[in-house]
Amino acid sequence: MASQPPQTHSSPPIGQSPSRASSLPPVGPSLPGTPSQAPSLPPAKKWDFLRNHYEKPTKQALIFSTNEKLDIARQLAKLGVDIIVAGFPASSEADFEAVKLIAREVGNSPSDSEGSNELHFPAICGLARCNKRDIDEAWEAVKHAKKPRIHTSIATSEIHMEFKLKMTSKQVIEKARSMVAYVRSLGCDDVEFSPEDAGRSDQEFLYQILGEVIKAGATTLNIPDTVGYTLPAEFGQLIADIKANTPGIDNVIISTHCQNNLGLSTANTLQGAHAGARQVEVTINGIGERAGNASLEEVVMALKCRGEQVFGSLYTGINTQHIIMESKMVEEYSGLRVQPHKAIVGANAFAHESGIHQDGMLKHKNTYEIISPDDIGLHRSNESGIVLGKFSGRHALKAKMLELGYDIDSKELDDLSWRFKAVAENKKIITNYELIALVSDEVFQPQVFWNLGDVKVTCGTLGFSTVAVKLIDVNGKEYVACSVGTGPVDAAYKAVDLIVKVPVTLLEYSMNAVTEGIDAIARTRVLIRGQASLSSTRALTGQTVYRGFSGTGAAMDIVISSLRAYIGALNKMLSLFQGPLIY
Amino acid sequence: MASQPPQTHSSPPIGQSPSRASSLPPVGPSLPGTPSQAPSLPPAKKWDFLRNHYEKPTKQALIFSTNEKLDIARQLAKLGVDIIVAGFPASSEADFEAVKLIAREVGNSPSDSEGSNELHFPAICGLARCNKRDIDEAWEAVKHAKKPRIHTSIATSEIHMEFKLKMTSKQVIEKARSMVAYVRSLGCDDVEFSPEDAGRSDQEFLYQILGEVIKAGATTLNIPDTVGYTLPAEFGQLIADIKANTPGIDNVIISTHCQNNLGLSTANTLQGAHAGARQVEVTINGIGERAGNASLEEVVMALKCRGEQVFGSLYTGINTQHIIMESKMVEEYSGLRVQPHKAIVGANAFAHESGIHQDGMLKHKNTYEIISPDDIGLHRSNESGIVLGKFSGRHALKAKMLELGYDIDSKELDDLSWRFKAVAENKKIITNYELIALVSDEVFQPQVFWNLGDVKVTCGTLGFSTVAVKLIDVNGKEYVACSVGTGPVDAAYKAVDLIVKVPVTLLEYSMNAVTEGIDAIARTRVLIRGQASLSSTRALTGQTVYRGFSGTGAAMDIVISSLRAYIGALNKMLSLFQGPLIY
Repeated sequence: MASQPPQTHSSPPIGQSPSRASSLPPVGPSLPGTPSQAPSLPPAKKWDFLRNHYEKPTKQALIFSTNEKLDIARQLAKLGVDIIVAGFPASSEADFEAVKLIAREVGNSPSDSEGSNELHFPAICGLARCNKRDIDEAWEAVKHAKKPRIHTSIATSEIHMEFKLKMTSKQVIEKARSMVAYVRSLGCDDVEFSPEDAGRSDQEFLYQILGEVIKAGATTLNIPDTVGYTLPAEFGQLIADIKANTPGIDNVIISTHCQNNLGLSTANTLQGAHAGARQVEVTINGIGERAGNASLEEVVMALKCRGEQVFGSLYTGINTQHIIMESKMVEEYSGLRVQPHKAIVGANAFAHESGIHQDGMLKHKNTYEIISPDDIGLHRSNESGIVLGKFSGRHALKAKMLELGYDIDSKELDDLSWRFKAVAENKKIITNYELIALVSDEVFQPQVFWNLGDVKVTCGTLGFSTVAVKLIDVNGKEYVACSVGTGPVDAAYKAVDLIVKVPVTLLEYSMNAVTEGIDAIARTRVLIRGQASLSSTRALTGQTVYRGFSGTGAAMDIVISSLRAYIGALNKMLSLFQGPLIY
Repeated sequence: MASQPPQTHSSPPIGQSPSRASSLPPVGPSLPGTPSQAPSLPPAKKWDFLRNHYEKPTKQALIFSTNEKLDIARQLAKLGVDIIVAGFPASSEADFEAVKLIAREVGNSPSDSEGSNELHFPAICGLARCNKRDIDEAWEAVKHAKKPRIHTSIATSEIHMEFKLKMTSKQVIEKARSMVAYVRSLGCDDVEFSPEDAGRSDQEFLYQILGEVIKAGATTLNIPDTVGYTLPAEFGQLIADIKANTPGIDNVIISTHCQNNLGLSTANTLQGAHAGARQVEVTINGIGERAGNASLEEVVMALKCRGEQVFGSLYTGINTQHIIMESKMVEEYSGLRVQPHKAIVGANAFAHESGIHQDGMLKHKNTYEIISPDDIGLHRSNESGIVLGKFSGRHALKAKMLELGYDIDSKELDDLSWRFKAVAENKKIITNYELIALVSDEVFQPQVFWNLGDVKVTCGTLGFSTVAVKLIDVNGKEYVACSVGTGPVDAAYKAVDLIVKVPVTLLEYSMNAVTEGIDAIARTRVLIRGQASLSSTRALTGQTVYRGFSGTGAAMDIVISSLRAYIGALNKMLSLFQGPLIY
C-alpha cells in the first residue's frame, strides 16, 4: 500500500487583488498553484544523467502510505489550495491507487471557501512523462476528480536531449506538442507542461517549445528552478523573459517551482510571482529532495503580510488557520522534523510572541502588518475546542479527531480509543499533539502482519540488557523471543528479528517527547531498509532505489515506543511486498 | 559558568575581488563581518516595549557554557571569520568571563589564512548599550584580544525613544555620539554602532545620527532588519539609501543583520551586500531567537557559487571546509536540531550527490558552479584522516580530537578515553560524529556536582517500570534511590529527583541515534527549567527570564543516555546557581 515518492502536497494559489489595476494577464479571483516533489520530475537535476553510474542508495526516500497521502490531501483541501499534486500514477500500482483515491474523495469534496458563494473544489493533478502510457495512467487516476489535471514534462536542455532522450530539438518539440494534444484529446482540459532543466536550456528554444505547447492546449507552464542555485533576481528575470517572449503566453498561467539548495527558494518564488507567475509550486514545511522546495507557509505568510505593500496586492486564497495542523501532520508522516528556528512553523518561531496580544495593539499603529500565532492556527492547547481527559468517551474522541482533521471510525476508532484510555490513566489532559501522535502510530497502518504483545525489559549498568518480546501474527498465534543487546532497544529489536526473520538495516532512530513534562508521551520514529531483494526501480530514471520504510510509535515507555515504531516499519515493508516473506 | 544568551557565533567577511573594478568604497582584501544574537540587542524587536507586560517564560533560551562558547569560537576562527561576537559582558559575570577568555585565547591565535602572508586574527567583539558601565565592562573583556571591538547600540525609532528611552531625538544623537567617542577614548579603535529599530526610524534622522557617530569615530554601521518582515528589495533599498545619504559613509563599513521571520534572511543579507554592505552578521545553522538569523553557510555558499556571476565578484574569506564540523558543534551545544532538508548543512542536503564525483565532471562543462559536499567538509567517515577503533590508544584519541577541533588534555582526555573504550568494546569503528557526541556529553561540563553511578532498570508491559539509580556527589559519597514511573525514563528521573531534591520541569526531551545501525550511540538532549527562584533578569530589558538548562548524554543504552543528559542539565543549573541548593 505504500506508494512511491511523488507525494501529496500543496500549493497556495496566487491572485491579484481586484482592487488594483495591473498589467498582468486577467486571471480568476484565485488562481491555481501546485507543487511537486517527484523524485526527479518535473525539475530534473542537472546531474540526473550521471546518476545511474554513481548514485548510492538513497538515504531517506520520502514514502507515504495511501492513507497518509489521503490525510494530507484532505488537510490541503482545508487549507484551500487550488491544486493538489497527488502523485505519479505510472510509477507504481500503489501510487496509481493513491491518486485515484484522492481524486475520488478529496477531488469531489468542496472545501469551505471564505467570502465566496461558489463551492471550491481542489484540482487533483497527476504527473506524467511525455508518453501515452504515463498519460493514460494519469488520466485513469485523476479523471474521477471534479477538476482533473495532468502535468507532463520533457527535458529541453541540449545535454538532456542529446544524452538522455537521444532526440533532436525538433523531435522534442513534436513530442511535447503531440502529448499535450493527446492529453486534451482524452477530455482533460487542464494541462500543465514543464520544460525540464529549463535553466540550462537555450532561451530561444524555450520560448519556441512553450509557444508550441500553448498552441497544443497547455493551460499552465511550469518553470523549474532547475539547478536550485538560482538567485532571486535571475529567477525573476527568467520568468519575465518567458512572459515577454513566448507566443500566446497571455492566455496561460506561468508557474514557479523552486528548489532550496542555497536557502533562497522562498525569495525566488516570491520574485517569480512578482515577475508574473500566478501559480507557485510549494510544499508543506518546505520538504522535498535534498534541501527541499519552497515552503507553503513562508510564501503564503510573506504574501499575506507584505503582498499589498510590496507585490502590487498579490494574495493567496489559503486559509492560514490550518497551517500548523498540516505542518504537524506532514512532519509526523514524513519523519522530516522541522527545526525549532524554522520560519513560521518552527517551535520557536513565535516563542516570544505567543503571550503577547500584539495584533490589535500594533495594528492601530498601522506601521507594519505582523504575523500573529493565531493567524496560522497556533492556539494554546487549553484554548482550542474540546478538551479530552480520562473520562472522555468514544464519541468525544471521534468529535475531537474530526476537529483535528482525522475522519476515523469503527475499528480505527476502537484502537485509538483503547490506546487513549491507557494514556489517560496516567495523564490528566491529553493535548492535541499527543492525540495526533497516538492516531498516526497505529490506526493508519497499511496492513498489520505483526502486533506487539507483552514486553519485559531489564537493563542498566549492571549486567546485560535483556528484553523478552511477545508478537502476535495475523492469525492470533503468539511468538515469544528474548535477546540480550548493548542496550534495551538493541535487545528488543534483536528479539523481534528472531521472530520476524526479515533482515533489515536501521537507518535512522529518533525520539521526541510530544509535550512538556516528564510524563509526556514519547514518540519514536525509525527508518529501516530491507535487504537487496526489497529494492524497487524508479519508473522515471530506471535506477534502483533501496526503499526506506518508516514507522512511528507512541508510548509513555520509551522501549515500548521504540518497539511500536519498529514493528510499524516492518509491517509497512511487509505489506508493500505482499506479506511476510518467510513462512 | 553558564553565560547569558549573547552568544558566540560567526560571520563571513565579504570582500570585493581585486580583479574587478567597482564603484564601492575601497576595502581591504577581506572585510569584516559579524553576527549577533543578543536577546534583543542590536535588532530590537518592535514589540520589545510590550514585553514586560505580556511575555510568558521563554520556552528555550539559548545558553552556552563558557567552554562551549570557547569551543565554538575556536572553530569560528578556523572558519576564518573576521569578527566573533563573543557576548554581552555587562549582562552577567559569567558572560564577562566568557568574553574575556575568548579574547585572550582565540583573539590571540592566528588562524591559517589561505593565500596570504599576513597572520589572520579574528576581532573579538563585545556588545554594549550606550552607557559607560556597559562600555567599560565590554572593554575590560575584549581588550585582551589582538583586535578588540565594541558594538554599541541605541534605539532610534520615535516609539522607542519616547516610551523606552524617554529621550528626545537630540538627546539620543548626543548619547550615541558621546558614547562612541567614549569607546574611542578608551583606546578601542574598532567601534560598531547599531540604530535599534532602524526599520521604523525616520530615515532622515537615521542619516543624521549615523553621520554623527561616524564623526565621533564609529568604523562600522550595522543596519538591523528590525522587524524581520522586510523583503529583499526593501532591505536592499534601505542599505542603498543609507549609503547614498549618510555623510562620511564612504569611510566606514556598512553591515547587515537580518532576521528570518519569513524565511528571507539569506536573500535579504545577499541583497544588502549587493547594495553595498561589506559586513554581514550571520549565525551558524541560522540559529537565533524565534525563526533565527541569516545562516553563515547559506550566505557563504551562495557567494561562493554565484558571487562572481551575480554579485560583481563579491567573495568571503571563509574556509568552507570547516562548515560541517562547526554546524555539528553548534547543533550539539545549542540543542537546536537542524532539519534534514536544511540548505547546505541538513542531513539530506547532499543526499544524492555525495557519491557522485560531479565536481570535475561538471566543471569542464563550465555552465554553473555547483556545490560539492567536499566544499563544506562533508567527507565520508572512512575517508577522513585517522580512523579509531577498539585498539586505538590515548595518543591517537588526542590526535583525532585535535583534528575534529577539540583541544583536550589530562583529566578531560582521561574521561573521554574511558568512555571511548566502553563504546569501542561493542563497535568496530567509531565515527567522528560519535566521538563528538561523546566529548560534548561529559568532558565539557561546567562543574560536576553529581556523577552517575550504577543503574538498574526493569520495565515493559508487565507491571511497573522500576529504576534504581546510584549517584555520587563531589566528595565521593554515594546515594541510592529507586522509583516507579510510567516508563523507564520517568522512573529514572524520579529516582534522581529523590536524591538531588531540586524541583525542575522537563521542557524538552529528544533522542537521536548518532549514526546508522542498531548498535549506534543514542544521544539524548533534555531541557529543564528550575523553579521560580532560579530565574534571572535580563540586563537589557529588565524582564524576568526563566532560564532553561540543557544537557546531553550519549550511550548505547537509551535509559543511561537519558540519565546522563538529565544529570548534565542538573549540573549546569546547579553550577550557575553556585552549588547544590539543598544541603
